[in-house]
Amino acid sequence: MISALGPDGLSGRRPGELLVEEPLQIRLDDRVVATTMRTPGHDFELAVGFCHAEGLMGPGLPTEVRYCATSSAVETSFNVVSVSGGVAEPRTTAPRLGTISSSCGWCGANSIDELVDRLDVVGPVPVPSLATLAEVEAGARRHQKLFAATGAAHAAACFDAATGEVAVVREDIGRHNAVDKVVGRLRLDDELPATGRGLWVSGRASFEIVQKAWAAGFGLVVSVSAPSALAVSTAGRSGITLVGVARSDGATVYHTQLD
Amino acid sequence: MISALGPDGLSGRRPGELLVEEPLQIRLDDRVVATTMRTPGHDFELAVGFCHAEGLMGPGLPTEVRYCATSSAVETSFNVVSVSGGVAEPRTTAPRLGTISSSCGWCGANSIDELVDRLDVVGPVPVPSLATLAEVEAGARRHQKLFAATGAAHAAACFDAATGEVAVVREDIGRHNAVDKVVGRLRLDDELPATGRGLWVSGRASFEIVQKAWAAGFGLVVSVSAPSALAVSTAGRSGITLVGVARSDGATVYHTQLD
Repeated sequence: MISALGPDGLSGRRPGELLVEEPLQIRLDDRVVATTMRTPGHDFELAVGFCHAEGLMGPGLPTEVRYCATSSAVETSFNVVSVSGGVAEPRTTAPRLGTISSSCGWCGANSIDELVDRLDVVGPVPVPSLATLAEVEAGARRHQKLFAATGAAHAAACFDAATGEVAVVREDIGRHNAVDKVVGRLRLDDELPATGRGLWVSGRASFEIVQKAWAAGFGLVVSVSAPSALAVSTAGRSGITLVGVARSDGATVYHTQLD
Repeated sequence: MISALGPDGLSGRRPGELLVEEPLQIRLDDRVVATTMRTPGHDFELAVGFCHAEGLMGPGLPTEVRYCATSSAVETSFNVVSVSGGVAEPRTTAPRLGTISSSCGWCGANSIDELVDRLDVVGPVPVPSLATLAEVEAGARRHQKLFAATGAAHAAACFDAATGEVAVVREDIGRHNAVDKVVGRLRLDDELPATGRGLWVSGRASFEIVQKAWAAGFGLVVSVSAPSALAVSTAGRSGITLVGVARSDGATVYHTQLD
């Protein structure tokens, strides 16, 4: 039942379409590494991008990415993706946040330290002009078809940091998933690290968004809304230029190496 | 380094404050059940609300909720909260989504079925009027101090479904956390199930938001933005009246029992 509520109560007008949300289980070499609620589409990219951000993959490209099929010939699941090959050597540093078995005294600074241990500082990228930011937003909007239809989809875009030209745009109900899909596309095309490129996100910049950008080698992150304090601290340690509240009439530079 | 980017390039104007984001580890009877990136504040409510939504607690109130202290007398962590007592009997149904060890064929419908197994259908709540929705939004906004200061905080509010009067408002960088904090407050005050009350959220209504509302017994969920298809399906199974895209000039009723 979908109907509209107007000044005179319920009416029969049927509003826009609904965005689909389904669980996706990500497996790496037959080990379950994550489950996420995502919008179906570009699932291979999502799985590869997630594994890349978490440092679970080695330098090589995955040898196979596939939907997991059951033993039945007629039943195939499209909500389980398995990534094979290109797996990282076991790390000696702390496990990821989500599975950490913490002692007391743990805090956001530890989360950053874990990234510092495994990721190189990215090269500085100059602060883009407002004209460049407008170019990025316009380029992304042209591809935000799910948002136009449903009003419920976030988006992430990879762009040329100098010109603002948009290369890859992905949408999802979750911002993190949209970023994973962009990073996974670049990884599958062997275009990482994303040197000289920027990552645009349609929402806020949280710690995890900056973490994913750092792991992919982006020197610039632009978010339409505001970042968290931990996101700014992480940008500072990573070398990322972080621009937030990016609107047509202004933006805020939260961190850049050009001080 | 925080500065503003205007038409003439960087300027020295310092924009608003940054929202704090820190990891919180939630323990239930000394077992780690979750780690979430949250905005500090109302941490006990967050821990209790999360455990309630996941069906980890029994009918009783927790006997103790505390920050986890180390053996050192001088060091106490405020990023680990331990909930004791009031724990649910082990369930025979499937474990929660995040830890499920899935076979193929798994999908969003299974996620709903798991909730149907452990939760009762909630009583129908009439579709609120636009005047009531406006009252709720105005009431919530008055308490959104973190959003006003940072532009980065989501909010959730509990309100009287008939009058729109707001009772509890909580803010967090994550929508899910804000909802957990509201539910945790009600649980600690022994005010669950939230019969006759509505849950307002500042963002989209995803499956997990409706799941948390259902577990708390809300008969009405109102979101400022659009819901996902799975959220609408879940509302249909739960009996929840789901209203989305709630703005001053209209709203969309995605599901109600009053067909």
